[in-house]
Amino acid sequence: MDLTFDTISAEEYDEHRRRFDPLTDALRALIDVGIHTDVDDSTVLLALEHLEEAHALLEQKVRTTRSTLRHADTGRAVVWGNPAIGLRNAIAPPMEVHREPDGSCWSEFTLGPMYEGPPGRVHGGICALLLDHLLGEVASEGLNLPKFTGTISLRYVRGTPLGPLRAEGFVERSEGAKTFARGYLKDADGATVEAEGVFIMPAWARDAGRSA
Amino acid sequence: MDLTFDTISAEEYDEHRRRFDPLTDALRALIDVGIHTDVDDSTVLLALEHLEEAHALLEQKVRTTRSTLRHADTGRAVVWGNPAIGLRNAIAPPMEVHREPDGSCWSEFTLGPMYEGPPGRVHGGICALLLDHLLGEVASEGLNLPKFTGTISLRYVRGTPLGPLRAEGFVERSEGAKTFARGYLKDADGATVEAEGVFIMPAWARDAGRSA
Repeated sequence: MDLTFDTISAEEYDEHRRRFDPLTDALRALIDVGIHTDVDDSTVLLALEHLEEAHALLEQKVRTTRSTLRHADTGRAVVWGNPAIGLRNAIAPPMEVHREPDGSCWSEFTLGPMYEGPPGRVHGGICALLLDHLLGEVASEGLNLPKFTGTISLRYVRGTPLGPLRAEGFVERSEGAKTFARGYLKDADGATVEAEGVFIMPAWARDAGRSA
Repeated sequence: MDLTFDTISAEEYDEHRRRFDPLTDALRALIDVGIHTDVDDSTVLLALEHLEEAHALLEQKVRTTRSTLRHADTGRAVVWGNPAIGLRNAIAPPMEVHREPDGSCWSEFTLGPMYEGPPGRVHGGICALLLDHLLGEVASEGLNLPKFTGTISLRYVRGTPLGPLRAEGFVERSEGAKTFARGYLKDADGATVEAEGVFIMPAWARDAGRSA
């Protein structure tokens, strides 16, 4: 597994986002209208022609490097493809994770109809996806340590409404290679889902740490 | 909360899928290329024009009814928008859930780069999303009973590779309003993630059952 970090300069990062953010946003809007559209056959076919044209243009050149990037100024991981935080993955809200000096993390985001399970509510599995990711960031100190989810348990306190939400997470304690993290998904009235996870540094990373 | 079921005829269902499946597939392909494309500014702008044209066409007419549909012949729930199984939600793989006579459920699907967490592996939170959904289907007898996730616990046995996967779930036991379900995500070598969940029928549904 390649966990190499390459550096991206602040200028290159800004330029990359300026170029590709509108594309990802356009795809998010299309996913939404794709669920709800009720146009007739011929209109679907016309739309498909445009989508195929766009696809042909975009696949003219694709990245093949898969290394993890680190922002030259902030030192933080830059993630394009991840389904929770990936800035260029249209299925991600995306969560933008903020890290406090004490290591706790939080993120505020808005979830629309593409994340709906029961009517008007966020799918419980989407809550799990976002909390799993946030606790993983907490445990790995912002994706800087290779830690993998061992177990995660989620308690659904009540339905999570679609709309603006906040996720929070922090490390409770560490024992050897294990880190115990806890977090919450909240709406304006408080917690809707509670999560606790155990994250584990794999043996190869512990060995690498000893030999470094 | 509206949990009304409307019926969709087999003919209407087939016609709907024939019209919209290619659209959802085209959006899935675009999400993928959107993550990996490295074309220049002017090509992105050209692609954006096509995406905006497609969006304008598709939003000319949108569905406003949100009731849950049931297939006239099979009696099974038909779900368009759900992020795990929604046939018209491009963020869903989608899982197609098969139900055995004993009530157990299984689904086989292939997960590509849009679901990637660690390099070459499925994001742990995506595993949680899919298992949460499958156990919910198991507990609610195919979305026919209103049951909500109370708690779910996931144990990550090893990394789940991108590619073809299978999810399985079954009810272990029921106690009053609580149903205990268990499931697995598997690759060709066996289980990668184990899940157990407690699903609860809300008080309003239990009251409705008593008065019916």
